[in-house]
Amino acid sequence: MTAFNEILVIGSVALDTIKSPAGYSKEILGGSAAYFSISASFFAPVNLVATVGSDFPDAHRKTITSFGVDLKGLEVKDGLTFRWEGSYVKDMNCAETIETQLNVFAEFKPCLPKGYEKSKYIFLANIDPDLQIFILKRFSGKRFIGCDSMNHWIKNKNSSLKEMIKKTSIVFLNDMEAKMLSGESNMLKAGKYLLSLGPKFAVVKRGEYGAILFSKDFIFMVPAYLLEDVRDPTGAGDTFAGGFMGYLAKTNKINEKNIKNALLWGSVMASFTVQDFSINRFLKINKKTIEKRYGDFKKLIAM
Amino acid sequence: MTAFNEILVIGSVALDTIKSPAGYSKEILGGSAAYFSISASFFAPVNLVATVGSDFPDAHRKTITSFGVDLKGLEVKDGLTFRWEGSYVKDMNCAETIETQLNVFAEFKPCLPKGYEKSKYIFLANIDPDLQIFILKRFSGKRFIGCDSMNHWIKNKNSSLKEMIKKTSIVFLNDMEAKMLSGESNMLKAGKYLLSLGPKFAVVKRGEYGAILFSKDFIFMVPAYLLEDVRDPTGAGDTFAGGFMGYLAKTNKINEKNIKNALLWGSVMASFTVQDFSINRFLKINKKTIEKRYGDFKKLIAM
Repeated sequence: MTAFNEILVIGSVALDTIKSPAGYSKEILGGSAAYFSISASFFAPVNLVATVGSDFPDAHRKTITSFGVDLKGLEVKDGLTFRWEGSYVKDMNCAETIETQLNVFAEFKPCLPKGYEKSKYIFLANIDPDLQIFILKRFSGKRFIGCDSMNHWIKNKNSSLKEMIKKTSIVFLNDMEAKMLSGESNMLKAGKYLLSLGPKFAVVKRGEYGAILFSKDFIFMVPAYLLEDVRDPTGAGDTFAGGFMGYLAKTNKINEKNIKNALLWGSVMASFTVQDFSINRFLKINKKTIEKRYGDFKKLIAM
Repeated sequence: MTAFNEILVIGSVALDTIKSPAGYSKEILGGSAAYFSISASFFAPVNLVATVGSDFPDAHRKTITSFGVDLKGLEVKDGLTFRWEGSYVKDMNCAETIETQLNVFAEFKPCLPKGYEKSKYIFLANIDPDLQIFILKRFSGKRFIGCDSMNHWIKNKNSSLKEMIKKTSIVFLNDMEAKMLSGESNMLKAGKYLLSLGPKFAVVKRGEYGAILFSKDFIFMVPAYLLEDVRDPTGAGDTFAGGFMGYLAKTNKINEKNIKNALLWGSVMASFTVQDFSINRFLKINKKTIEKRYGDFKKLIAM
């Protein structure tokens, strides 16, 4: 229970520019690995592998390390950092991409610093599935591997994506991605399809409607925590996975009870993310705040 | 616990013509009171007040009475029965109305047969809020009153609707209606607004995403039961309310435990409705089938 296990995340660190009904924020800290690592850091030590350009602000780097995340794997390359601009003005549940500049992320070839290969919990955030497969080859022995992806890879690297998912323990997708990958419009059929690809678990994230965990032995559903203040949903899915994987690493035992609880902790971490732009909400909370919300969330769904 | 209390529903009995990806069904039994009463009949005796035309098929009448629903309050008028034609071909979560023929329903002036005024549990299904208020004047003493409404009345009879909701114990609306009536795009704010109108409880139905129960003392959320076969969502909301009110009438005690359980029973009854056109699924199930699904549903959401 108390044996700590390190978490490794491979993904993106980016500069996001976000428009939402709550305002406009320019070049704020973003990227799947940034969101995931900060969320998971509340549960267990986290190592991060990503790439940024030489323009990446030192303040953002300090923000990430202030959560205890190890950045030895954050490679700095000549060039510009990955930038994404999105808007939630029309629909708070679905980002409209205004601009994507891959920059140095286009050439990302993840490199594991010494020691990182010992991490027992690995999260392959949304990157090219061929890179995800390439990274997995660095690991041997028993690991708990989670992965995420997106519509772009479902469409353009379908067979690599399926090959990658087969090698993982758990796949995290949102409902649209799950339906797209499975070709099923029905959620239950889509969930079963994800399991048929090989992973032991599949989590379908439904935004403000919660999440569903599929496994061979059980299905578990949770609604999302109700909030009055939703300012920026960016990163909710990655902080969800961060809370989920973080809790499993902390407890270090994969069983039904912990997996179900992980779905709650993931939901709780995602609920903080959307309350402010970037990872700003996490700068103002601590383990106590998180435990309090976990308790409130349990009350919302307990009989 | 075993003291049975009668339920009274005032609403519509209609002939529906439905197109969905699962097929096409013409002039099948529909209407809020038909759906509600058949659902509630699995829990407690139900009295129905509605109006139909002289063309209403005897087979449909027999179908309703086969569930033990009392039809003394089903007035037959010269003219045609209320007809509604809808399509779910574009969106399974939202009916597109193709045609509405109010016919005799346009002149509906609900009349309570002797004895009906003793019903302790009353459900004012979606009709003109002025008629809902008119009916309530027939009742004195302590009652548990539920109500439903729709976008048409929110728009065109807003103050009557609010006056009516104030007189009820619980209001059932879907998420779009709750947002429209409250003027809030946020679900938590919308729920609080509904309570501010006066009822002790408010239920917001979210279709395939479940339901939320709001009260001053607690909020309770459930996802919807996962199904592989969804054929026709018509009537899901009314059967939800039927299961909810039916369970409360059966237990005859309004407390947090029963109210939370009622949300589950409502969800269970709605889950059967959508599996077939009209009320057809209820012709093939019994209390055991329902209890089995209630158990399965609890497993889906229990920690």
